Amino acid sequence: MKTVLTGIKPTGKVHLGNYSGAIKPALNLARDNKLEPIYFIADYHALTSVRDPEEMRELSYGIAATWLALGLDPSKSIFYRQSDVPEIFELSWILSCFSSKGLMNRAHAYKAAVDRNNEAGREPDEGVNIGLFTYPVLMASDILLFKSDLVPVGKDQIQHVEIARHLAEGFNKQYGETFSIPDYVVEEATAIIPGLDGRKMSKSYQNTIPLFEESTKLRKLLNRIKTDSSLPNEPKNPDDSVVFALYQEFASDKDIARMRERFENGIGWGEAKSELYHAMNLFLEEPRRKYNTYMSHTDELELVLEKGAEKARDKARPLLNEVKRKLGIRM
Amino acid sequence: MKTVLTGIKPTGKVHLGNYSGAIKPALNLARDNKLEPIYFIADYHALTSVRDPEEMRELSYGIAATWLALGLDPSKSIFYRQSDVPEIFELSWILSCFSSKGLMNRAHAYKAAVDRNNEAGREPDEGVNIGLFTYPVLMASDILLFKSDLVPVGKDQIQHVEIARHLAEGFNKQYGETFSIPDYVVEEATAIIPGLDGRKMSKSYQNTIPLFEESTKLRKLLNRIKTDSSLPNEPKNPDDSVVFALYQEFASDKDIARMRERFENGIGWGEAKSELYHAMNLFLEEPRRKYNTYMSHTDELELVLEKGAEKARDKARPLLNEVKRKLGIRM
Repeated sequence: MKTVLTGIKPTGKVHLGNYSGAIKPALNLARDNKLEPIYFIADYHALTSVRDPEEMRELSYGIAATWLALGLDPSKSIFYRQSDVPEIFELSWILSCFSSKGLMNRAHAYKAAVDRNNEAGREPDEGVNIGLFTYPVLMASDILLFKSDLVPVGKDQIQHVEIARHLAEGFNKQYGETFSIPDYVVEEATAIIPGLDGRKMSKSYQNTIPLFEESTKLRKLLNRIKTDSSLPNEPKNPDDSVVFALYQEFASDKDIARMRERFENGIGWGEAKSELYHAMNLFLEEPRRKYNTYMSHTDELELVLEKGAEKARDKARPLLNEVKRKLGIRM
Repeated sequence: MKTVLTGIKPTGKVHLGNYSGAIKPALNLARDNKLEPIYFIADYHALTSVRDPEEMRELSYGIAATWLALGLDPSKSIFYRQSDVPEIFELSWILSCFSSKGLMNRAHAYKAAVDRNNEAGREPDEGVNIGLFTYPVLMASDILLFKSDLVPVGKDQIQHVEIARHLAEGFNKQYGETFSIPDYVVEEATAIIPGLDGRKMSKSYQNTIPLFEESTKLRKLLNRIKTDSSLPNEPKNPDDSVVFALYQEFASDKDIARMRERFENGIGWGEAKSELYHAMNLFLEEPRRKYNTYMSHTDELELVLEKGAEKARDKARPLLNEVKRKLGIRM
């Protein structure tokens, strides 16, 4: 049985792009009986940038509530919050002693920060904290501690899995077979969910549609989707339409085929948006209700996360102890 | 009551220089009833350089056995092994998110490594691992997690306490009073214990006298101490003699005064060394026996360290939880 690890960094309100690009494919993996899914809320990764305690709490709970509302079954997976598993940070220190600094100098996120500083005429390391600089090591620890075989990632995250592989192979070579060698799986869909303005849906473009937006607000947001100036009755290209792209994410195959026809026959934009709203609302109504219930009963979330942390630690401890024995740190 | 924290890095066999420069003054602190002493074996710091598991185990146990043999009383102090306290590594990650990379770029140990590389015409970061680069952050965590007020250090370690202060002050300013602000205490004596060749006793000069050397070997080693060519009966300057310097570390005040006289009256080198041997052997006989017993019963050491880790974790947990609450990482 292969272990699949999905990390979710709580850095903003969950939107449709997150759902289609990451949550949906990750939850689909859990349906494969040959895979053991592990999901975690990477709250300590978020600490490199999130500094407001209220925001941190809301975002972490938001992630937990979102995934549970969308069908994550904690009894069929391991679902935990990174900060509840201290073993991760101990292994992270160990791995840092085996990570060359040169490797971190070449990590994408750090290099991007340096580039931005250089362009702005600032000191190269200005505003860079050690958490940001070394988080590929923490990520390697996240991955290796659970003997993850597969790690679904966006393209910008491939390097992190490669660093984890590199550290695992190095350790295994020196101390004998210890870590599993992880592979990445690139989510091809990640890039294509369009936002309100037609560009990729992304927090940084401020064009997002929050996943659990209240229904009247959702309707208003969908009405703001950019469309072309074609009139009702004029044929429309479904494959060039944000409305159709989003509709595909929530409607049944039959309804999608029918909608494609209606586009070609010249559906009006108002009507198309109304159909999108109804499809989305039908799909999201129940998860939204569950989400809101969890968010107003965070003690229940804590219970779920507590049990998850126990399962995670039970899985992590034997490997950490094995590593420590091999290093001479433990009897 | 002020907390005094002493960290001991297991990187070589304990020698007389370690004893006089670090162990003796640290154990003296424990006699002060107004101080709460904490001692820890910094095994995870050693991991930045020690890679052989047998060596790591021997060195860690060696430190534990040495301090206990010399009178460290675990019931009147907190005495633990760093790797038994996972809270340290979690706090270390938190602090790393608040440590600017520029601060680490300027840390002495890292800068020295870069200088050595530059001189040898190598890449600046060659052979530097992330553990070495970021260990001032781990050290800050060691210090701050136990609300240490005083940290006895050698001069080369002052910067580490300053970094810990800086991080504590920054956090307190942002999140309210949380960490105690530590002060360093410089052990003035550190530099003056001479080795066999008269230079400072140091592993790197290979001029050390192991503290628990078996007595016949000790005698032979002492006979190798470099002396001048003055003949027996010629007056000798005690303050210019390695033999006298070492004698002062182990003899009573009365015996030291008498020996000073004998030097001035022209004691022969052979006799002086013989007196030194007897004084040292008298002093070290009992600790040496205890040390050897511990080293052949490491399960007893494990028991002592286990209890120490419990005390350490009981002290550490409330502070870590407070920090996590303030960050929004915990309810």
